Amino acid sequence: MSGMPADWLGNERILYVVYPKFTALDMVGPHYMLSNLVGSRNHVVARTKAPVTSDTGLVFMPDYDLDSAPADPDIVVIPGGGMGTLEALKDDALIDWIRRIGQGKTLMTSVCTGSLLLGQAGLLRGRRATSHWVARDSLAHFGAIPVAERWVEDGPVITGAGVTAGLDFGLSLVAKRRNDEFARCVQVLAEYDPHPPFQAGTPEKAGPTTMATMNAMFVGFDDHIRHLAERQRR
Amino acid sequence: MSGMPADWLGNERILYVVYPKFTALDMVGPHYMLSNLVGSRNHVVARTKAPVTSDTGLVFMPDYDLDSAPADPDIVVIPGGGMGTLEALKDDALIDWIRRIGQGKTLMTSVCTGSLLLGQAGLLRGRRATSHWVARDSLAHFGAIPVAERWVEDGPVITGAGVTAGLDFGLSLVAKRRNDEFARCVQVLAEYDPHPPFQAGTPEKAGPTTMATMNAMFVGFDDHIRHLAERQRR
Repeated sequence: MSGMPADWLGNERILYVVYPKFTALDMVGPHYMLSNLVGSRNHVVARTKAPVTSDTGLVFMPDYDLDSAPADPDIVVIPGGGMGTLEALKDDALIDWIRRIGQGKTLMTSVCTGSLLLGQAGLLRGRRATSHWVARDSLAHFGAIPVAERWVEDGPVITGAGVTAGLDFGLSLVAKRRNDEFARCVQVLAEYDPHPPFQAGTPEKAGPTTMATMNAMFVGFDDHIRHLAERQRR
Repeated sequence: MSGMPADWLGNERILYVVYPKFTALDMVGPHYMLSNLVGSRNHVVARTKAPVTSDTGLVFMPDYDLDSAPADPDIVVIPGGGMGTLEALKDDALIDWIRRIGQGKTLMTSVCTGSLLLGQAGLLRGRRATSHWVARDSLAHFGAIPVAERWVEDGPVITGAGVTAGLDFGLSLVAKRRNDEFARCVQVLAEYDPHPPFQAGTPEKAGPTTMATMNAMFVGFDDHIRHLAERQRR
């Protein structure tokens, strides 16, 4: 862009980690925001270079497998998912990769239950962190301190709440990487002026009737996570 | 799900049309909401079955090409994009497909500048419609009546505003296809309790300084659309 302020230009290398049955919106929300960082290079990484199908059936082609991915990205974004994320907690190659990258200078981030993968990699011990409401308290199984916020920054780790929180976390990170005025440009480009037709976006706002239905869908989820977290301590 | 209310089950066939340099979030937002409609079948359609790269570099594998796609979907969702959408306005095979489907009983919907494609297919003549703010007034070139709302329903056509409006439009359509309580469940599943870190989501809220920057990025956009709309009238 001609006439672009000099402080708009950066050169971040940002990796988005996908795995079978991940939630596409968890990844695409922050990807929209962060890929607007002028000069940034945004790539999708998966266990292999084979197509990866999301939990709602969208099929993505990764740019890199774990072995070929840049070893020192500036930012890693890890989306969540339902049963797919629980399966990923057992994927030692994936968890080892997250742990290895997380030991460097990379800003490690997650949306939704992606924080469970950060936890399994040992990156949340003693840190304040959040997740989708269904899994937030389960973060304690990884030694984290669960926090009910839209997104939580603690040292080199930022965790977002469920699914759509990736938009808010992503835009806040855009401001942090450039400045508020640049983030305002990205916000109006996204026309991010939300008008949800209902007010049921948190368990508290949704209320007991809706939550009785939802909680019935997730019976045993915490037990499952606790069991999987034991892999880490072996 | 055991114990699921009987009126939660449907069987919609929903097609999402993608094309080179479309905006992934325009499609993935409503896809998240609508694919939660229990019993719905959600598929991605493109000009060919080759991988399609979004404007931010995400690579999607389509389920169908235009010829093999189901001919009588219940709902079609058309995302927008920047220059990619302008290129798509010249793709006669794509526009003809949209026109043909739109002459049946299908609910035709768009997010962002996807409404330009509905317009090029002749489906917005005399109808109230919206688009991304940058292209909203340009809808008049297709005989539409531009409206500044988050989403606009007029007969068998629903158009959404820019990018993130697909979440609001998608959730409202979930309520319409089932009921409000079901939509509230989907909203809390998405943890859709938006907390934008800034208040700059519309041109009015962004204000003159930010909009001076933005408008400089889109000089000539309306002229380009007007020129392309003339193809339709030949």
